Amino acid sequence: MDNQDEIRYLDDLHIGERFLTGTHELDANQIIEFAKQFDPQPFHLDDNAAQSTLFGGLAASGWHTAAITMQLQVTGPMHIAGGMIGAGVELSWPTPTRPGDVLQAESEIEDIRISKSRPDRGIVTVRTITRNQRGDILQDTRAKLIVPCRPILKK
Amino acid sequence: MDNQDEIRYLDDLHIGERFLTGTHELDANQIIEFAKQFDPQPFHLDDNAAQSTLFGGLAASGWHTAAITMQLQVTGPMHIAGGMIGAGVELSWPTPTRPGDVLQAESEIEDIRISKSRPDRGIVTVRTITRNQRGDILQDTRAKLIVPCRPILKK
Repeated sequence: MDNQDEIRYLDDLHIGERFLTGTHELDANQIIEFAKQFDPQPFHLDDNAAQSTLFGGLAASGWHTAAITMQLQVTGPMHIAGGMIGAGVELSWPTPTRPGDVLQAESEIEDIRISKSRPDRGIVTVRTITRNQRGDILQDTRAKLIVPCRPILKK
Repeated sequence: MDNQDEIRYLDDLHIGERFLTGTHELDANQIIEFAKQFDPQPFHLDDNAAQSTLFGGLAASGWHTAAITMQLQVTGPMHIAGGMIGAGVELSWPTPTRPGDVLQAESEIEDIRISKSRPDRGIVTVRTITRNQRGDILQDTRAKLIVPCRPILKK
């Protein structure tokens, strides 16, 4: 079995380990549909209206880029035992996400700490960079995930 | 005109000022539909499957809580000139968001800084707390918004 496809407990993760997701192709329609529901601002809804804004053309909501990145991670090769559960996240959007962008995310394990109060789990810091097909950085994320330790087998 | 409904440039915002949004009522169907598209994990998709997880029952994706919070803010009383554009965000989810929760967000201006390189704009730090109808904190966000200065009228 490919090690990258195994379910990982805290004990199975290593600092510096990397995981590359599949891809998601975004079009104007997806950008507009998400924006109508969650971020109805002109630069996310209409290319003409977006021309005179800071974006200079239609751009996806940052929360749409974040949601697609989550989808890529959940369906990607990093399988955390108990699921991917974030306690907190820092993120930035260095480049706007545009219609026609093909998104892909790469995650790296930055830190692993066993909880002092709950020794059956820990916090794993994961940095994830979301890029488009030209390599532009669309989103830079640092997330703290709650990850269970491998259960101790009773004798 | 109520001051809270005006369009605000950087010059019009004050540290300590607060803005309360309207509300959004969440149901299991919305949670599941969002999760299918963006965060297809058992605890966001199915109440039965969620029972044996860390959440102990159906919970919304954190990205869904974030997207609803954005929707509440965009349709709320804080009208930033040029729109609400985030350069970066830190967020945490202290309490899971559940079916039946009624979400409401309150924002407070924490800091205002004029850009050194671009004196026509600045960065405004806004802290936003998203609560449910019981006052539980569902999301705690600190965002850096790009806000234009009021244009200088030429004589």
